[in-house]
Amino acid sequence: MDRNPRMAGVLAPVVTPFASDHAPDVGRFLRHCRWLLDQGVGLAVFGTNSEANSLGIDERIELLDRLVASGAGPARMMPGTGTCALTDSVRLTAHAVKLGCAGALMLPPFYYKGVTDDGLYRSYAEIIERVGDARLRIYLYHIPAVSQVPLSLALIERLLRDYPGTVAGVKDSSGDWNNSKAMLDRYAGAGFDVFVGSESLLLTNLRHGGQGCISATANVNPSAIHRLYGQWQAADADAMQRGLDRVRATFEKYPMIPALKHAIAHWGRDPAWARVRPPLVELPDAQSSALVADLVASGFSMHNLVPADA
Amino acid sequence: MDRNPRMAGVLAPVVTPFASDHAPDVGRFLRHCRWLLDQGVGLAVFGTNSEANSLGIDERIELLDRLVASGAGPARMMPGTGTCALTDSVRLTAHAVKLGCAGALMLPPFYYKGVTDDGLYRSYAEIIERVGDARLRIYLYHIPAVSQVPLSLALIERLLRDYPGTVAGVKDSSGDWNNSKAMLDRYAGAGFDVFVGSESLLLTNLRHGGQGCISATANVNPSAIHRLYGQWQAADADAMQRGLDRVRATFEKYPMIPALKHAIAHWGRDPAWARVRPPLVELPDAQSSALVADLVASGFSMHNLVPADA
Repeated sequence: MDRNPRMAGVLAPVVTPFASDHAPDVGRFLRHCRWLLDQGVGLAVFGTNSEANSLGIDERIELLDRLVASGAGPARMMPGTGTCALTDSVRLTAHAVKLGCAGALMLPPFYYKGVTDDGLYRSYAEIIERVGDARLRIYLYHIPAVSQVPLSLALIERLLRDYPGTVAGVKDSSGDWNNSKAMLDRYAGAGFDVFVGSESLLLTNLRHGGQGCISATANVNPSAIHRLYGQWQAADADAMQRGLDRVRATFEKYPMIPALKHAIAHWGRDPAWARVRPPLVELPDAQSSALVADLVASGFSMHNLVPADA
Repeated sequence: MDRNPRMAGVLAPVVTPFASDHAPDVGRFLRHCRWLLDQGVGLAVFGTNSEANSLGIDERIELLDRLVASGAGPARMMPGTGTCALTDSVRLTAHAVKLGCAGALMLPPFYYKGVTDDGLYRSYAEIIERVGDARLRIYLYHIPAVSQVPLSLALIERLLRDYPGTVAGVKDSSGDWNNSKAMLDRYAGAGFDVFVGSESLLLTNLRHGGQGCISATANVNPSAIHRLYGQWQAADADAMQRGLDRVRATFEKYPMIPALKHAIAHWGRDPAWARVRPPLVELPDAQSSALVADLVASGFSMHNLVPADA
């Protein structure tokens, strides 16, 4: 029942490659995960940018099993395990804990809108009780623009009071620094770890006692983001932050998930990587060319990515 | 490969009873379905009001299997089969078709917001192609306030053009009559059947060539709603509509799903019916008492409901 050390640093919500029939492409997935780990970032597989909610539970369990079997260390994994259905969330979370994953990143059930804090509390509490494993560490996933189900400070406080240690932190993808700071000010002292949802707030978060970031663009710019995490107290930290911001701003001009995948396809010389699962669509040719041109003009390159044909 | 006759009339998005451990309560579910059929309404199991998105796919398949095995006719069934994940939607839809269900009510994938019509088209088209069964009839489920993923007229037009007969209609839960009317004006002639999402628009819909309604309150007021469907050309149709509106308005003062379940619990003398699955919560005692008092004051009674202890 030993626990992993608490997670910290930079994690990538790992993008999921698909075969031509839209099945998850296990080989490309494992290779991308290995590359990310080599760049120093952890694996928040099954996040929003992973198209995880476009995968069935069995598909997610199979991918996670294959990832752990490949030798990637579960101490660096924080899979997304929150779904609309209580029973699915319990199944996926229990499986992640059994495999030794250091954390579980948990969306609230997101179909019903306008639900009460009481209802969300019951949902999280019921999952914790049913998983019933002292190794479980939950990171609450606050991403109101997508889930449309925000997690209030009052809800976090209640969960943290009743499940200290198990409710280990949050990924705050609100993009609202005041919200992240309120979480740090109130709960960091109680061992609640705040990860921001973009590297654009990484330095600010670290300076206020936060633990790191879980960011889409860590899929394509991992080593530079990880470098800022490691050297945030250096004299040139603000300059490093500005460098990260330029890359991030370029990706944000495009639909994020297809843009990330196109960059990997381009620098990996592997067009198959560009595929997305419906309801998403690939970048049109004009956009994908513009993305690469924008990135090259800003000096960006995935220089560490091993091309598929290497 | 014979098809059922096209569905028409009133359908209930059947509320799902739960045991104390939140597992679906098969016995109460089958009894409620049988009662609804006896009142003349069809079974849109696994709708929004069914808490279907709080159920796993296996739980939904098991319930549907049990329902068909109970002898309820699949010609009166339109299960909800649209989920976030392409693979889950295909599995559930194919199963419903195999069982002989007359239709499948299909939400778009609803996690990602701001998706394109191209992406939604690909999602529906891929499901249709993969199910690959000429008996399939899809009813598109437009419920923007909950799904946050609206279905545009342009999307419907494209699907109807490429999959005529298979794309059989819509449940329009926008509550916006102008939207329902636009669908009728443009596509009813092409065999596209419009069901409104509330009996408050039933008479209007029928007068404009629509096929009926699929409404939460058909769970508790089925025979009166079905009567208006059968007698919509009668002299007192407007008076009947006003009677339905009064009951509907009372339920709409409360959170709908727990209110429906409390009414069944009350008139069925079966408190277990009031349970909801997280993230929903039951009505507080003060609200549940007020609901019953409001309903009784308006002359409403579930007089046909056989009490659990009868």
